Amino acid sequence: MALDEGMDRRGVSRRRMMLATGAVAAGAALSQMAGWLNSAEAKDGSTEKWPWPYEKLDPAKTAEIAYSEWYRVFCGCAVINSVFSQLREKVGEPYKSFPVDAFVFLEGGQVGWGTICGSPAGANIVANLIIGPRIAGAHEGHQIAADIMQWYSEAKMPVFTPAVAKQPTPIMTTISDSPLCHLSVGKWMKASGYELKSPERKDRCARVAASTAYRLVELLNEWKDGKYESTGDFTCAKEYGITGQYNCNECHGDLVPEPPKGKGV
Amino acid sequence: MALDEGMDRRGVSRRRMMLATGAVAAGAALSQMAGWLNSAEAKDGSTEKWPWPYEKLDPAKTAEIAYSEWYRVFCGCAVINSVFSQLREKVGEPYKSFPVDAFVFLEGGQVGWGTICGSPAGANIVANLIIGPRIAGAHEGHQIAADIMQWYSEAKMPVFTPAVAKQPTPIMTTISDSPLCHLSVGKWMKASGYELKSPERKDRCARVAASTAYRLVELLNEWKDGKYESTGDFTCAKEYGITGQYNCNECHGDLVPEPPKGKGV
Repeated sequence: MALDEGMDRRGVSRRRMMLATGAVAAGAALSQMAGWLNSAEAKDGSTEKWPWPYEKLDPAKTAEIAYSEWYRVFCGCAVINSVFSQLREKVGEPYKSFPVDAFVFLEGGQVGWGTICGSPAGANIVANLIIGPRIAGAHEGHQIAADIMQWYSEAKMPVFTPAVAKQPTPIMTTISDSPLCHLSVGKWMKASGYELKSPERKDRCARVAASTAYRLVELLNEWKDGKYESTGDFTCAKEYGITGQYNCNECHGDLVPEPPKGKGV
Repeated sequence: MALDEGMDRRGVSRRRMMLATGAVAAGAALSQMAGWLNSAEAKDGSTEKWPWPYEKLDPAKTAEIAYSEWYRVFCGCAVINSVFSQLREKVGEPYKSFPVDAFVFLEGGQVGWGTICGSPAGANIVANLIIGPRIAGAHEGHQIAADIMQWYSEAKMPVFTPAVAKQPTPIMTTISDSPLCHLSVGKWMKASGYELKSPERKDRCARVAASTAYRLVELLNEWKDGKYESTGDFTCAKEYGITGQYNCNECHGDLVPEPPKGKGV
């Protein structure tokens, strides 16, 4: 199967900047990330040479593996293993030596705490393991992670429909406007009426993992072909002077705090 | 140096349950986690045999390494490497083969998106790599991750004071009531008045990484001695029927949505 027809791969909804007017002066802040790099000392670890060898994968096949793996290792680990299980066969090391199953704890936004959904968390791990960290001179892993966070937040999830689904298709889709598990799962539960422990909710999350794996492999394949361009257009620190998402009002209401200015810089 | 005098290692503030009365019926819900385990198939990966060999570490020394490493690789990677750099020397494999530096992207709540603070994210990775995932039969990695999330949320951060700090001590401390970077950093910035890009804010986050590494090693040492008991007393899915934190009202105000009940189960 494939991405649903008519789906803009960057997400169907345009990002909505909901920050209260005047709360921060966009464009005035310099990147907080700049200057954080001090040194990129090489270590002895043989796996710390980037990029790792990568061979292009089929997004749909990868998504099917992620869907199936969700029922074994849950969201984050399913996304990692959907890519790495194939690369273990196609490439071998260093994928064989990477302990994928340790990442089961990414479930439920990290052991049920509802923070980052395991699917983007797993995708971010994969992109940065393969491409390497920005301190090693490669920026595409960092950029793909940012792309995934924004794409996930804007997409009508789940996007991907497995060939043989464990629950009837179509299922309810929702836009999380956030990469957080609590918001992603909560909005879907509210719209669908299904409980957290229902088979339908579990199947929804398996499809979200599959959707994320699909998108991740699209981006990695573009990178492999030398055709990757970042799709993200949001850097909270640069635009607003604090790390964060774009949906400020969803938690803050009309009273969005203004980050402090001018002290210490 | 050590944890500040008088600091309850579980955190100085008691967890405050702020969920609106009647929003959910605590105690009635069964664990959503139960039944998620289908199979724990062994894979060929030599690093997927748990537990990994562990030797007890000095918490203060580990914290000092994390503090220093923050200035090279930032929060999440600093916590991971504070433990793994020592175990590479004391134990060797599989720590030498683990690509620690790939995890720089945990910075800023994952590439600046303000989700889970990199310090607990890194600690969770370490605990689960060493002890293994719950699907392999070991539950302490999952439990230590939950302990870290709650401890981090309740602690007056930063707890740890480095021997040679890059900024004057004492510094402002704040309680995040959340493991999210956006809340942890935002509350400290609000209380201290320092900008995100200030040296003081960076030093605060380096100390938070150090504090988390200290607590992580305390828990790992207890586990190694066979004396580990989970300190966490909060499971959102079990108590409230959704993944999440405990500070519902901080985002929802008085209108905390009630998760759906009875459909699909």
